[in-house]
Amino acid sequence: MGKALTIALDAMGGDAAPKMVVRGASIALERFPEVRFIMFGREREIAPLLKNKGRLQEVTTLRHTDDVVGSDAKPSVALRSGRQSSMRLAIDAVQAGEADCVVSAGNTGALMAMAKFVLKTLPGINRPAIASFFPTMRGESVMLDLGANVQCDAQNLVDFAVMGNAFARSVLGLQEPSYALLNVGSEEIKGHESLQEASAILRASGLPGKFLGFVEGDDIAKGTADVIVTDGFTGNVALKTAEGTAKLINEYMRHTFRSSLLAGLGYLLARPAMRKLRKRVDPRGYNGAMFLGLNGIAVKSHGGTDALGFANAIGVAVDMQRHGIIEKIRTDLTLLDRSPGNAQAAVV
Amino acid sequence: MGKALTIALDAMGGDAAPKMVVRGASIALERFPEVRFIMFGREREIAPLLKNKGRLQEVTTLRHTDDVVGSDAKPSVALRSGRQSSMRLAIDAVQAGEADCVVSAGNTGALMAMAKFVLKTLPGINRPAIASFFPTMRGESVMLDLGANVQCDAQNLVDFAVMGNAFARSVLGLQEPSYALLNVGSEEIKGHESLQEASAILRASGLPGKFLGFVEGDDIAKGTADVIVTDGFTGNVALKTAEGTAKLINEYMRHTFRSSLLAGLGYLLARPAMRKLRKRVDPRGYNGAMFLGLNGIAVKSHGGTDALGFANAIGVAVDMQRHGIIEKIRTDLTLLDRSPGNAQAAVV
Repeated sequence: MGKALTIALDAMGGDAAPKMVVRGASIALERFPEVRFIMFGREREIAPLLKNKGRLQEVTTLRHTDDVVGSDAKPSVALRSGRQSSMRLAIDAVQAGEADCVVSAGNTGALMAMAKFVLKTLPGINRPAIASFFPTMRGESVMLDLGANVQCDAQNLVDFAVMGNAFARSVLGLQEPSYALLNVGSEEIKGHESLQEASAILRASGLPGKFLGFVEGDDIAKGTADVIVTDGFTGNVALKTAEGTAKLINEYMRHTFRSSLLAGLGYLLARPAMRKLRKRVDPRGYNGAMFLGLNGIAVKSHGGTDALGFANAIGVAVDMQRHGIIEKIRTDLTLLDRSPGNAQAAVV
Repeated sequence: MGKALTIALDAMGGDAAPKMVVRGASIALERFPEVRFIMFGREREIAPLLKNKGRLQEVTTLRHTDDVVGSDAKPSVALRSGRQSSMRLAIDAVQAGEADCVVSAGNTGALMAMAKFVLKTLPGINRPAIASFFPTMRGESVMLDLGANVQCDAQNLVDFAVMGNAFARSVLGLQEPSYALLNVGSEEIKGHESLQEASAILRASGLPGKFLGFVEGDDIAKGTADVIVTDGFTGNVALKTAEGTAKLINEYMRHTFRSSLLAGLGYLLARPAMRKLRKRVDPRGYNGAMFLGLNGIAVKSHGGTDALGFANAIGVAVDMQRHGIIEKIRTDLTLLDRSPGNAQAAVV
């Protein structure tokens, strides 16, 4: 059992909250017996769920608040008027040092806006990014930014590379992660200028791991790089395109197995193996979008997740904390020489 | 049998050229008995392939040239020094009115550069785009740009919408295609300014079909819109991410069916249905990247394609020609009021 670790939970965030949050916390507690929780939300809804839950009840402090950030609330509005919301109070607990990290399945935009406002970004980082895991041919990779920053300059991309690199060393357990910038493959026109500039800075840097330069969209699933760095617009489109493609193929498969008696029988025989396959690509296993670049650990669970997915998101937060990701990012930032002169020289 | 139609073929483009090109032409001729071919390339390699090929030999004119554009040649270099290449001469044939369209499986960048230089863009269009089909839950959609233009302004996106719309009415056979701009879903920050502006212009336009506004990455595979419009950077990443995801799942499936005797037996029983599935998502069925916005019809076949895929690319060129896509684009361009004042007013 490791050192005690306290996690602030937004008990009201997510489609199935608070039930899903409490059950997720219960699953996480079995995996990480050393954690403690502070749950923020409506006492009359949460307290009955905790009743007679033995250890979970023991390690959980419940803080009542009536206010909840709506799933479609604008981030700016949530920031202004949601100061007593369960989401905000959970973030405040990290800032106050009461909790080591915060997990919420609520409104992504609001969570990012509040986390950035309350926790602030790390010195030298202008913009935090959203990162997540991807299943690949080689195992799993991490990609960022997935939507926090629609427009990114070279500096932002370099920062994302630093954060993703530190994340891979912390949570993926890699000593020398490979990392790359997502680009297009058409000849001559090798992407935006910001990509060229970011590449030059990274190549000249002393960051741990291996910088691979540019990769293309199909390299994400190939697992060519452990860390894929891109702007939030492209990352968001890539993430959702991959999700959509997976669903489409799944739909085709379902249709195929139902198309004939023989195919149906074949499915029955293959079912145990198919179950394993499904488990391997279970989106709940990859649940948890990490907010990187903040002076604190914040993990966003999928709004539609169930208890198992939420427990996985808690697990990611635990991993980030245990491996001191914030210290790693701080240290790595000092390894960059990002004076424009240096970058310019490197480009030439 | 329709009116005679002449297709210029770059017989030397593609990994398996010229054999694959000649065999592809042969397959296409069975489907479209009215077509004629002009093949450009090395006579001593092509002539033996045409020998004793009956009707194919009859309808094919062979034009000899020794020069070939390398698959990794820079577009600018190919443009300057490839004036006698098989690719360039095939494009010249369209410009000269000898052929109705050109099909090549050669270097994409070179083909686009040459086609743009020789055929020119349609009046009112600054940049041509690359479009392709996507399989979806509802059937198939078309997406553009897939990589011709890394950076696009609102005007480019509006032009792409016009081209894609005309393409859907021509080749997908839709009277009122739905079309949309690819964007990200994060709240508040709804994409680049150029997307907002393009949306306003399209909303105010009298284009045929239904403008759906913004869609997200997962809408591509859902088939939410018949035409998905995006810049060449995002489109290229989305296309390749989808390809990579499909390959990853295919690999998982293969692994699953081999994981146990029972699963293997199940696969044997399901095999006929699985074959149908594979046919449904066969990339050769979706082969053919259309260059839209040019004053002439040019189709790029995948470099690694086989004869069947090349025949499909020829089929796309035939469809575009038969349905008068260029006239449709010309007409639709007149329906746009794109004075900046108008767009501005629409945005507000």
